[in-house]
Amino acid sequence: MRLAFNTWVYSSFPVWVPSYPLDETIRRLARIGYDGIEIGAAAPHAYPDYLDDAARAGIRRHLDDNGIAVSSMLPAPGGGPGFNVASPLAAERDAAIDQYRKVARLCADLGGKTLLYVAGWQVFGTPAEQAWDWTRDALTDVAAYADDLGVTVVVEPTSADSNLVETCDGALRLMRESGRRNVKVMFDTYHCLYRNEVPTDYVCRMGRDLGHVHLADVARSAPGDGKVDYPALIDALREVGFDGYLTMEIGFDTRAVEPDNIARRAYEYVKPLVS
Amino acid sequence: MRLAFNTWVYSSFPVWVPSYPLDETIRRLARIGYDGIEIGAAAPHAYPDYLDDAARAGIRRHLDDNGIAVSSMLPAPGGGPGFNVASPLAAERDAAIDQYRKVARLCADLGGKTLLYVAGWQVFGTPAEQAWDWTRDALTDVAAYADDLGVTVVVEPTSADSNLVETCDGALRLMRESGRRNVKVMFDTYHCLYRNEVPTDYVCRMGRDLGHVHLADVARSAPGDGKVDYPALIDALREVGFDGYLTMEIGFDTRAVEPDNIARRAYEYVKPLVS
Amino acid sequence: MRLAFNTWVYSSFPVWVPSYPLDETIRRLARIGYDGIEIGAAAPHAYPDYLDDAARAGIRRHLDDNGIAVSSMLPAPGGGPGFNVASPLAAERDAAIDQYRKVARLCADLGGKTLLYVAGWQVFGTPAEQAWDWTRDALTDVAAYADDLGVTVVVEPTSADSNLVETCDGALRLMRESGRRNVKVMFDTYHCLYRNEVPTDYVCRMGRDLGHVHLADVARSAPGDGKVDYPALIDALREVGFDGYLTMEIGFDTRAVEPDNIARRAYEYVKPLVS
Amino acid sequence: MRLAFNTWVYSSFPVWVPSYPLDETIRRLARIGYDGIEIGAAAPHAYPDYLDDAARAGIRRHLDDNGIAVSSMLPAPGGGPGFNVASPLAAERDAAIDQYRKVARLCADLGGKTLLYVAGWQVFGTPAEQAWDWTRDALTDVAAYADDLGVTVVVEPTSADSNLVETCDGALRLMRESGRRNVKVMFDTYHCLYRNEVPTDYVCRMGRDLGHVHLADVARSAPGDGKVDYPALIDALREVGFDGYLTMEIGFDTRAVEPDNIARRAYEYVKPLVS
Repeated sequence: MRLAFNTWVYSSFPVWVPSYPLDETIRRLARIGYDGIEIGAAAPHAYPDYLDDAARAGIRRHLDDNGIAVSSMLPAPGGGPGFNVASPLAAERDAAIDQYRKVARLCADLGGKTLLYVAGWQVFGTPAEQAWDWTRDALTDVAAYADDLGVTVVVEPTSADSNLVETCDGALRLMRESGRRNVKVMFDTYHCLYRNEVPTDYVCRMGRDLGHVHLADVARSAPGDGKVDYPALIDALREVGFDGYLTMEIGFDTRAVEPDNIARRAYEYVKPLVS
Repeated sequence: MRLAFNTWVYSSFPVWVPSYPLDETIRRLARIGYDGIEIGAAAPHAYPDYLDDAARAGIRRHLDDNGIAVSSMLPAPGGGPGFNVASPLAAERDAAIDQYRKVARLCADLGGKTLLYVAGWQVFGTPAEQAWDWTRDALTDVAAYADDLGVTVVVEPTSADSNLVETCDGALRLMRESGRRNVKVMFDTYHCLYRNEVPTDYVCRMGRDLGHVHLADVARSAPGDGKVDYPALIDALREVGFDGYLTMEIGFDTRAVEPDNIARRAYEYVKPLVS
Repeated sequence: MRLAFNTWVYSSFPVWVPSYPLDETIRRLARIGYDGIEIGAAAPHAYPDYLDDAARAGIRRHLDDNGIAVSSMLPAPGGGPGFNVASPLAAERDAAIDQYRKVARLCADLGGKTLLYVAGWQVFGTPAEQAWDWTRDALTDVAAYADDLGVTVVVEPTSADSNLVETCDGALRLMRESGRRNVKVMFDTYHCLYRNEVPTDYVCRMGRDLGHVHLADVARSAPGDGKVDYPALIDALREVGFDGYLTMEIGFDTRAVEPDNIARRAYEYVKPLVS
Repeated sequence: MRLAFNTWVYSSFPVWVPSYPLDETIRRLARIGYDGIEIGAAAPHAYPDYLDDAARAGIRRHLDDNGIAVSSMLPAPGGGPGFNVASPLAAERDAAIDQYRKVARLCADLGGKTLLYVAGWQVFGTPAEQAWDWTRDALTDVAAYADDLGVTVVVEPTSADSNLVETCDGALRLMRESGRRNVKVMFDTYHCLYRNEVPTDYVCRMGRDLGHVHLADVARSAPGDGKVDYPALIDALREVGFDGYLTMEIGFDTRAVEPDNIARRAYEYVKPLVS
């Protein structure tokens, strides 16, 4: 299992500061020891419209020079454009699908092979079945596009933030209904905590369909600073033969944070567990 | 003084849920008694690219039918596109200015006359003077464009979220350096609290340059549920002859909120003070 | 009984901000309704060395114009010069006595008749008896000087901040040992709370020797926001025939405060009790 | 990098007790192992007016006998005399400059080479630009005087206490505008925390202009008892070639403290990091 770190805490999303350029962020995470970087598609790091071919080539070289790979990418839902694939506005749904395609392309351009899929959320007045159909259709579309790029799409239940795909079962059902072979599932220990569920149970139930994992503890703190049982979690991952990235997605919900500090603490706690 | 309510808590920004369509939001705020609505330019309410002429005409009719006016508009900084006017990425700065222009246009289309200006934030590696020059130039550009639409731009110090224009003086200086007559300043009691400053002092110092006011108390609670001295604040506003909107910008930083409830509590506390 | 307000929360002592000029402070307290103002001898209000005769005359006119009197004055112990009358440094003791004389003079120049006396504190290495002798001699000297100015000196036990005169009995003993008729005692409800003593007991025990009273509640909050029994306290003051000032000394230990707000809250709570 | 300890917690500023004579304080800090002592210019330690030539010679001998050097000195702002270089009172500004000169002289007399500069604060009614001009002019004057004594002046952003120079950029700008070569900058991790900023970023941005560092953690606790990332900070200091003092400025905002205990805890945590 390789270790990766999600870039939100170094970016301007969701809180604006602290904020570091992407090249600085890459250099810092590589120096700490991470194998991979999960790049959020948000300014000032990697909003697709802002990066032309030359910029992408430059990032790729910088990644190679620092010996760190792109583990995965994901869009930034909830800002001005929303990017809610289940929005009642057709214009927003179209823009959301378009953004997923752009992120998939950017991910491939940077050498990444995994795209996270947030299923959107139900706005007041939209029937649940309607919202579900919209997110399923969007996923099918995005996955078809990603397949041609060699990118796998992983569906993440996001109970703490949304109201559409909140559970292990919801993610598995959406995966099946997409009908695409390059769709898998993932989970985030933080969202398990929000539902008072046991992260290790997610490993057992997702099994071979598990394509990616997010680690975070109480209040988005670093693994080891909260209450999740990481030794058990990593044992379970070994048992099901998981060979993807364990990605820390931490610290990003407040400006009262030192990004390097939380990145290093997480690495130093988890690295011995996977070695 | 008229009372308005900011729409974030009803939108998908910055937290995704709860989320209500704009027409529903308009209807609810009008029913509570608000004179105005401050519309954030975020999905699913009013992201400019998602609203064609017909949609804008429809919203305007709906506002008129409900007897509520657009007090003001503002973009949603910090999502995927960032819209940081002081970003080190030229593409982001251009997009930010373009977005401000679009929001100004949308504001005018909906009958609004006030556009809020968030001065952006300094990303690691950008000298403060450079960040300042970028935000000043952006403001000058946006204000020139807004002038033709009859829209006033008000600069808001946002100390709790950013690191560039944090103070009364910073906002006044940016206003002056813009060299535009349709630029004024505003303040938000919440950001005063973050700096441990006295909101009433802002009224005295901004005086006739004060074009807009945000009300929020500790932890973005409703006025009256925290510790700000609203009677003194409103007295001071009367003394300087303020005749704009007092806009509640509250409750939006958590999904653990009932939007109508917080909107009603705020109205019921502030209304008697201004009557 | 008349109500006064102590100026620390409007000054740069002990926290630097917020800070208002003295004329602004006088105007605000008069407008709230206070009969008196207790002026701390600290910048930017009333450090004696900074105020020449013209400045003093100007302050006095401003007081008269606003219909508010100087209830009392006190030095600011503990800054750079210390002004600890019990310091092991002879130079500091001399400077402290000199400063008390200057404050007494300034008090008289502004029409005040009461000077507060803080007995200093014992520094490591100084025997308690020695510290006591120094503070007694200083008091005797200061009181003699003040007598010629028509100023009464009131000894305050300051248990929360010091270690020399902490109790009702300590203050009374120091008063007696001074041998001066223009020396009386006072107490501060906040210091009573620090010792878990009952403020009303101080009234009974100080009786006709009581020349001044400070009101403050838990954590220097306004009367009525804490746990002191003010109705009982004021009844007791009536019984002993107290006709001095009740002075609010509140809010000054943090910058997270709105001075007008705390001044108004205190006034609105106490005024009905003394009417 | 050498370790020093600031004397506030042993002095009568800002809280009056506990308080130890300077010779006792020197002996204790040397015994713990500190290389340097940062002496605050407050009673009963080192208020310049209280120390004649003989006293200064005595302190210097005592320092030498104990094998500890004066790392730096600083005035005590905010007491009775204020010493706010940006005060609206000309008399206070003059006294503040005079005090800085006296402290520079005392520093040199005790063998020190670094004088800290607190830029003052903006009092209500003073325009920000005016306050800035006053502090810049004061700095230029003080630095010229200090230059002749071989003393370097370091500008400290003090966001937690003031409202004039709060940031890395503000300190750098003031340094540049002084036009003096013996002016550098410094930072205090505690003030970084107040702004929710990353201390290590200050090292990167101040670089070769960094002349001094204050260490303190949450609530002025000792390094290691809070949340600052000291290993990263010290790595960054090594990278920029910092060879000054790391000075603990801790524990002084409450009387509920054992000075030796907090001094020893800090030393035992930081010493291994710099060895």
